[in-house]
Amino acid sequence: MAQTAKNIAIIGSGLVGSLLAIYLKKRGHAVTIFDRRPDIRTVQFSGRSINLAMSNRGWKALRRVGLEDEIKKIAIPLEKRAMHVNDKPVYFQNYGKEGEAIWSISRGVLNRKMIDLAEEAGAVFRFNEKVWDVDLPETKVYTGETEKSEWKEYQFDLIFGCDGAFSRVRHKMQRRSRFNYSQHFINVGYKELTIPANVDGRHKLDKNSFHIWPRGQFMLIAMPNLDGSFTCTLFMPFEGEVSFENITTEKEAKAFFKSYFPNVRKEIENLTEDFFKNPTSAMVTMKCYPWTYWNKVALVGDSAHAIVPFYGQGMNAGFEDIYALDQLIESNGDDWEAIFEAYQIQRKPNADAIAELSYRNFMEMSSKTADPMFLLQKKIEKRFAERHPEKWVPVYSRVTFSERPYAEALAIGDKQEAIMQEVMRLPNIETIWDSEVVEQKMVQLLSR
Amino acid sequence: MAQTAKNIAIIGSGLVGSLLAIYLKKRGHAVTIFDRRPDIRTVQFSGRSINLAMSNRGWKALRRVGLEDEIKKIAIPLEKRAMHVNDKPVYFQNYGKEGEAIWSISRGVLNRKMIDLAEEAGAVFRFNEKVWDVDLPETKVYTGETEKSEWKEYQFDLIFGCDGAFSRVRHKMQRRSRFNYSQHFINVGYKELTIPANVDGRHKLDKNSFHIWPRGQFMLIAMPNLDGSFTCTLFMPFEGEVSFENITTEKEAKAFFKSYFPNVRKEIENLTEDFFKNPTSAMVTMKCYPWTYWNKVALVGDSAHAIVPFYGQGMNAGFEDIYALDQLIESNGDDWEAIFEAYQIQRKPNADAIAELSYRNFMEMSSKTADPMFLLQKKIEKRFAERHPEKWVPVYSRVTFSERPYAEALAIGDKQEAIMQEVMRLPNIETIWDSEVVEQKMVQLLSR
Repeated sequence: MAQTAKNIAIIGSGLVGSLLAIYLKKRGHAVTIFDRRPDIRTVQFSGRSINLAMSNRGWKALRRVGLEDEIKKIAIPLEKRAMHVNDKPVYFQNYGKEGEAIWSISRGVLNRKMIDLAEEAGAVFRFNEKVWDVDLPETKVYTGETEKSEWKEYQFDLIFGCDGAFSRVRHKMQRRSRFNYSQHFINVGYKELTIPANVDGRHKLDKNSFHIWPRGQFMLIAMPNLDGSFTCTLFMPFEGEVSFENITTEKEAKAFFKSYFPNVRKEIENLTEDFFKNPTSAMVTMKCYPWTYWNKVALVGDSAHAIVPFYGQGMNAGFEDIYALDQLIESNGDDWEAIFEAYQIQRKPNADAIAELSYRNFMEMSSKTADPMFLLQKKIEKRFAERHPEKWVPVYSRVTFSERPYAEALAIGDKQEAIMQEVMRLPNIETIWDSEVVEQKMVQLLSR
Repeated sequence: MAQTAKNIAIIGSGLVGSLLAIYLKKRGHAVTIFDRRPDIRTVQFSGRSINLAMSNRGWKALRRVGLEDEIKKIAIPLEKRAMHVNDKPVYFQNYGKEGEAIWSISRGVLNRKMIDLAEEAGAVFRFNEKVWDVDLPETKVYTGETEKSEWKEYQFDLIFGCDGAFSRVRHKMQRRSRFNYSQHFINVGYKELTIPANVDGRHKLDKNSFHIWPRGQFMLIAMPNLDGSFTCTLFMPFEGEVSFENITTEKEAKAFFKSYFPNVRKEIENLTEDFFKNPTSAMVTMKCYPWTYWNKVALVGDSAHAIVPFYGQGMNAGFEDIYALDQLIESNGDDWEAIFEAYQIQRKPNADAIAELSYRNFMEMSSKTADPMFLLQKKIEKRFAERHPEKWVPVYSRVTFSERPYAEALAIGDKQEAIMQEVMRLPNIETIWDSEVVEQKMVQLLSR
């Protein structure tokens, strides 16, 4: 349906803010994007980034505005996990079927590109301009130097809060009665580290793998960049025996990397330097509702549903918000009240589902990977999925390589888990796990 | 242990703030209480109060500072529920054993009295002075006319946030990383109504009862005041068939009271007037952690753990916080870091438990009271408790008439519920419910 051009403010020039700007410009609106930070194209990266894994949902949203091919140029496909276990050869594990991959992209590189594209599309960026307050019913935005300084007032028709997990826009909505909200931090922090390229510019580890060094309560991951380097993330408890709190000197850091990550030992100098240069960041699951204020204001992306990064779906979920919003714009035209209402009703269960799945993945990685019964269960599932691909699509594939709702992936995953609980109770499951008996039992349980 | 006198700020002059002031004055500290509202002793009540039910935990905290007898003078003991079901005589139900009662107190009357007592004890009140900001590490308090006006700065040694569910102090703590927080509103609202005294000053309904008109998705309750009136609360969904949203005219309000509450029909004029005069309020469960900031700042009462009112424990839980805090002061002397750390570790599980119990009571009242199997279960439990009082103390009594931790009441209640689930699965339970078989089954299950 045709739309009347609106004067629209987007708060936040991150990935979601800039992609939304491109979508709204395509529909003929005037778009101004505010960001309290300077133009990311003019500054160094922050040193607190986890590389992004773009998967089907993200690509779908880029495709709708014709950007898929352009962004693929700055992405590297990863079709497998590379598991680094000490004293064993690297173990490779395909993510999905032939041709299925997640794509590694540097957050900074992608964000710069997206801002370029939004600017080309005609969006106006106001960097270094912090939004202190939003008048929801009047759709006014107030910016200024400090909370107590003189503020500038801007009037818009619509405001989108794309300002992340600690959103100012949501903060304003949160003060209203009957606004549900939660923020829950996990006790694990993360730190960005780097493995530089070889002198010849090539990657030091396999380029088309997502590298993991699982170590029980902590782990290191590495994702490739175009320049031959890897952006690594160390996930580790804030407090406890092996923890950020307990590594305070260069000597302790070196000893830590030497004993737990010997196969990256050539990089230890570099990792140790990063360790003290880069901040330790916290991870939060944030949920809220409603996401919209009448036909005036809407939250999109992390501002509505920040999740922990263990499923690699944060950006994908935010991009999918935009895709859903645009479909609703398509069918509802100028009725922004209907668009916003349908948007939050459609997206909320899916945001809750991916939050839950991401949190479970964190629990799984941190506590279950050492449990032999859990590993056996995964082996049985894998075997069955390979023999009956039409009967058993693993949750990971449903989330990562499908465009079906996250809520469906969660529900089917729970059903599969219930089946596996019964299978694992079969007598002598350790010995008969790859037998016809187990396979038939699963077929039978599935047909119930 | 002896304590060095500190200069202490309390934010909020409600029940918890004023009782905490009395406690801290007893220990020789200088105490200043800030409140954004005017002195409650000089103004009309707000019309958005639910009468309080003081029970054992509240009395225990008042007793420790010698106030139990004085406050009992302004309270009315309620030893039973009076259930008003249409076309049936009023049905009375004792709360506990002989001599066990909850006590009805008007929030306004109690608050005025507590402020009098805190003032007598030497606390300084600063009414009409809104706290806009708190510097946590520097223990500074900033007050002013508006958020953007000139602020006054006060320096203290310690700050206590007793400023309720929408606490400013907590709001400041919430902006720190790794602060867990949730606010969850239920879809039911409430409205204060009044049944005035008879012309001779006597109560129109039995004075020593907690009156309930249960109506499935909504209900009316009434608690007596000293002046012969009753403070009533109508709990009802915000939206839906019978809801606040759907009663917009006096005619609709009258019809509503007439059809659902015929035995208060003489009061309908008055109830109808209140209905449109008084606001409809929302109810929230608020949880957070940590509750303290180093040895500087602590949250007490609703600011740390706001709960829905369906167990009548909000004030009791807040008073118990103060009691626990004072015990820790007693044993830790000047070590405020130890006091605050032990305080939050001890109280948090209990606050979570009473939040859960209160929410379940809401679910129970709004959806289960019409279920015959649920009512049968309650009958079986009651019979068993009467015959085996040493084996079966109902959760209600554990919460209301005991001083054991809320968390224990919740855990034992869950065990009892698991037993009852098994009992309710016995064949023909509807006919054999009062038989020896059922009784012996429960004894056996309890001894497992």
